[in-house]
Amino acid sequence: MSDTIKDATIEYAIRLGDDANVLGHRISEWVSRGPFLEEDIAYANVALDYIGRARMFYGYASELTNDGRTEDDFAYMRDDRQYRNLLLMELPKEDFAYSQVRQLFIDIYYSLFLPELVKSKDDTLAAIAAKAIKETRYHLRRSRDWVLRLGDGTEESHRRTQRAVDSLWGYTHEMFELDDTEQLLADSGIGVDITQLRDEWHRQVSAILTEATLNIPEDGWAVRGGRIGYHTENLGHLLTEMQFVHRSYPGCQW
Amino acid sequence: MSDTIKDATIEYAIRLGDDANVLGHRISEWVSRGPFLEEDIAYANVALDYIGRARMFYGYASELTNDGRTEDDFAYMRDDRQYRNLLLMELPKEDFAYSQVRQLFIDIYYSLFLPELVKSKDDTLAAIAAKAIKETRYHLRRSRDWVLRLGDGTEESHRRTQRAVDSLWGYTHEMFELDDTEQLLADSGIGVDITQLRDEWHRQVSAILTEATLNIPEDGWAVRGGRIGYHTENLGHLLTEMQFVHRSYPGCQW
Repeated sequence: MSDTIKDATIEYAIRLGDDANVLGHRISEWVSRGPFLEEDIAYANVALDYIGRARMFYGYASELTNDGRTEDDFAYMRDDRQYRNLLLMELPKEDFAYSQVRQLFIDIYYSLFLPELVKSKDDTLAAIAAKAIKETRYHLRRSRDWVLRLGDGTEESHRRTQRAVDSLWGYTHEMFELDDTEQLLADSGIGVDITQLRDEWHRQVSAILTEATLNIPEDGWAVRGGRIGYHTENLGHLLTEMQFVHRSYPGCQW
Repeated sequence: MSDTIKDATIEYAIRLGDDANVLGHRISEWVSRGPFLEEDIAYANVALDYIGRARMFYGYASELTNDGRTEDDFAYMRDDRQYRNLLLMELPKEDFAYSQVRQLFIDIYYSLFLPELVKSKDDTLAAIAAKAIKETRYHLRRSRDWVLRLGDGTEESHRRTQRAVDSLWGYTHEMFELDDTEQLLADSGIGVDITQLRDEWHRQVSAILTEATLNIPEDGWAVRGGRIGYHTENLGHLLTEMQFVHRSYPGCQW
């Protein structure tokens, strides 16, 4: 592996790890707050799937950097400006409809992304993707069912779900943008050329929103910056909570 | 100074420092959220008064312990179970009426407590009290005016203010309880016998509440535990925010 490819792969693993870690934490905020017990446990399971992915991606970044930093250092010892997650992952959980719509957007995204990543020439990334594909299949079934039920439900659930779709739409564009690092990895058969997946994502999302009697928003605005460390104010607060124990007891072993 | 008295004085300074530090942080949460600019600045000033007191009390605790711990160690390197503030200080800011009623209860408390502490045989405690008395005079004028205005205001402001009085009442009993440590200091002419101030506090609070057309609650319930480190869930979240920067950059100098 050349140094250039190696550096790009480390950056890629950190980005994917950050996406999983931040989203996993957000989902975990629903634990003990679900609308009924089964749903509460489902949230806990989905959160754990993502935190598990974060461990695998960070573990790989740790292996490649080989400078003594562990998965915990990546998770707990970086500030918001060093995090590289998509902004969509860090937005507050808001109401149930909002969290489910976000989840739908992300689940469809991963259901397209992971089957590409599984073909990566990088065996570790391919193996992580293979494990994650199965989880995402279950996640998508759940978020799809909920968006249909809420969109085509009561007047209030419809209103809230449409509001969630409209609020989140401008954060979905960032998912499909390639910078030089990801372009290099895509060209090398290691990373995914995410730009190729946008149309299929849009087709699938539109079909579900239409079935749920929801409007598909215009592409009127877009926010980006997560991949270069420019985050919304939400990430700092999330990390403050997430990192508190580790920052208070640095290097602590259980 | 005997070792027993010294240990008790350290504990006392920490308690008074914790009261000031936690309340100061809570008040600071109003900054940029005041109802108008002048009030916003007033909040910032009151918060700074309390954080200034915390520095003086922690500084004295640091001087007496003489073990290398600084004021910052007392503020930032202790967990919630090690904090010794009254529960009243850590309750969330809630709405404007709630914060002003809490402030009234506390301002009357300090307007009775500080003139006693200023007579302390301990010169440092007496000097801190002398400085704080002037601040409290101004604080009390403000909280008194607001409680009158809100209680005797609109239907909504009256309702909210009464709700605040009822919610906070059970946390005021803890203010007037002496344990062995404080009894020892009171007997030694160093600390204040706070039990002697309860009736006058009650008289002054009742007069203002009555003028504000508010009911004085029955003593139906009371919560305590702050002085022995048993806190509400709110303190942990407050400390997580307050301590984040220092925990992230331990020993950092500006």
